[in-house]
Amino acid sequence: MPTNRRFLLQRRPDGTPVAEDFELVSEPAPALEEGQFLIRNHYASLDPAMRGWMDAEGNYMPPIPLGDPVRASTIGVVEESRAEGFEPGQWVMGLNALEDYSIGVTGGFTQPIDPSLVPSVTNYLSIFGAVGMTAYFGFLEVCEPKPGETVLVSGAAGAVGSLVGQLAKIHGCRAVGIAGGPAKCARLTEKYGFDAAIDYRGKDEAALTAAIAKACPDGVDVIFENVGGIILDAGLMNLNLHSRVGLCGLISEYNTEPRGIRNLWQLIVKRAHIRGLLVADYVPRFGEGAAQMGVWASQGQLTIDEHVDEGLEHAFDSFMRLFAGTNDGKMILKIA
Amino acid sequence: MPTNRRFLLQRRPDGTPVAEDFELVSEPAPALEEGQFLIRNHYASLDPAMRGWMDAEGNYMPPIPLGDPVRASTIGVVEESRAEGFEPGQWVMGLNALEDYSIGVTGGFTQPIDPSLVPSVTNYLSIFGAVGMTAYFGFLEVCEPKPGETVLVSGAAGAVGSLVGQLAKIHGCRAVGIAGGPAKCARLTEKYGFDAAIDYRGKDEAALTAAIAKACPDGVDVIFENVGGIILDAGLMNLNLHSRVGLCGLISEYNTEPRGIRNLWQLIVKRAHIRGLLVADYVPRFGEGAAQMGVWASQGQLTIDEHVDEGLEHAFDSFMRLFAGTNDGKMILKIA
Repeated sequence: MPTNRRFLLQRRPDGTPVAEDFELVSEPAPALEEGQFLIRNHYASLDPAMRGWMDAEGNYMPPIPLGDPVRASTIGVVEESRAEGFEPGQWVMGLNALEDYSIGVTGGFTQPIDPSLVPSVTNYLSIFGAVGMTAYFGFLEVCEPKPGETVLVSGAAGAVGSLVGQLAKIHGCRAVGIAGGPAKCARLTEKYGFDAAIDYRGKDEAALTAAIAKACPDGVDVIFENVGGIILDAGLMNLNLHSRVGLCGLISEYNTEPRGIRNLWQLIVKRAHIRGLLVADYVPRFGEGAAQMGVWASQGQLTIDEHVDEGLEHAFDSFMRLFAGTNDGKMILKIA
Repeated sequence: MPTNRRFLLQRRPDGTPVAEDFELVSEPAPALEEGQFLIRNHYASLDPAMRGWMDAEGNYMPPIPLGDPVRASTIGVVEESRAEGFEPGQWVMGLNALEDYSIGVTGGFTQPIDPSLVPSVTNYLSIFGAVGMTAYFGFLEVCEPKPGETVLVSGAAGAVGSLVGQLAKIHGCRAVGIAGGPAKCARLTEKYGFDAAIDYRGKDEAALTAAIAKACPDGVDVIFENVGGIILDAGLMNLNLHSRVGLCGLISEYNTEPRGIRNLWQLIVKRAHIRGLLVADYVPRFGEGAAQMGVWASQGQLTIDEHVDEGLEHAFDSFMRLFAGTNDGKMILKIA
């Protein structure tokens, strides 16, 4: 039996997670029952949404039970199988956990993937995974961008945000991104093709509002929101009539009591709306989205950065990069 | 020349308006130019939105210039005319001001009304005016209620809210209203037909959230929001999947720095949206809305209360009732 290192949730974080909320343990890999297969996890996706799963209330997913490994999307290889359709050696992806080995079941969420179709197998956790599909369906279906419109993206250097900016350009929009620090801002314009970048660091709400107004001289028609707080409030002050806010995330609030959004009255003035989006709703259409993203990527119209940290023993530090903003691209943990 | 008393905005209110922000002056009624007519105002509508017009920033309307009378919808009688189509004795309604006499112009917003068609001419400021049309279009078009759904209305004893609750019942929905104090709550269920009423007084956000959950055992499909603050936050915690929030007003914020809405993440969890609404967008369809409201009213399916205070000299106290919640129905000031 190989050893299975597992990164367990031992205590529910109170605000910002600390290392003591988790524990890395070693157990024998589980034995298979009929209909199961053993997945050797190679890469795990680290996502802001995982923070919500650690709370007692849960969100769109049940909370991670205390003592269970932290839930995460992973890609790996079938090591052993007692399930039809999953042969040893097959690459798979699914919603598993931060651990060396996970159990898959026939008819579950785990599906075969083909590494030969993509430049890197990790792309299944970025451009062809939940991140890419969030950008694709969240932006194109929920925000309804039209050519010539101005699209404001917060968390624009992040995995989803950087893709949304590129999709905005593909759709003939002006793309303006908000990110933290000059290096990320340079990446927005130089690498992802944003028309303008705004560094939120050191800016209060009034300064941010003014910076957005300057970067968006025709106002803002679409906000793709990943952050919340004063960044969203400053965006709301720049909305055009009949504009749309796609609410993808509120990462500024995940570890603290929310400051609260104070400019909702702008929705009345501008007859605008804020609509929450969740990629899970589009699972039946992932094939369509992945095919289209693949075409654009192969044409050189879409770039995604992946930030790969190595080692399950660094799971905590890697996860916390998401909140410190020290990751450069889609955060991925290499397990094997 | 008759004397024209005018209730002027002399200073922009800092937070809650005080009497010294205004001044009642007497001037001669203005002389008419060609194309104008003189309106003897009889009744004025006092609305929360007027508070926003007093600020320097304006909202969906330009700010009231300092030294000008406070802008308000009025109904009155043409006293003198140099304009075609407006004869002396004709009843009219329009966006005028808190003053004895206003000037109307051909092609302006002032339109003839027929008091013989309605139980009281004041109904043109309530059920057949902006209030009624806000309830009609704001609820039916923006919130898209379906039979069997649960509709939560804040500010439910107010002019718009009480109509929305009744429209919800006409459309086969469960209607739950939030209001301040036992007398208003009794009015909701006994007079307007709400299925349940929640008294927000003395309740913090957790208690309000629990009270809504109790009154809405199947969750909330539509929120018609007039208040904001913890009332909206508590409502958001009770949303169903794919629910809709029609944002009509945020009266709890008009005189203070907003507390901020902290449960926006529920929009993601529930794939719900908040959409701002403004009755001005529906002006071309007011005829349709008024006709339908008239049918329902004549069938006894719609009741509206009007709270009529008398005397331009009481304009300030009457206006402030809207924020203290001491009005029982649509706030109207009788001028003559």
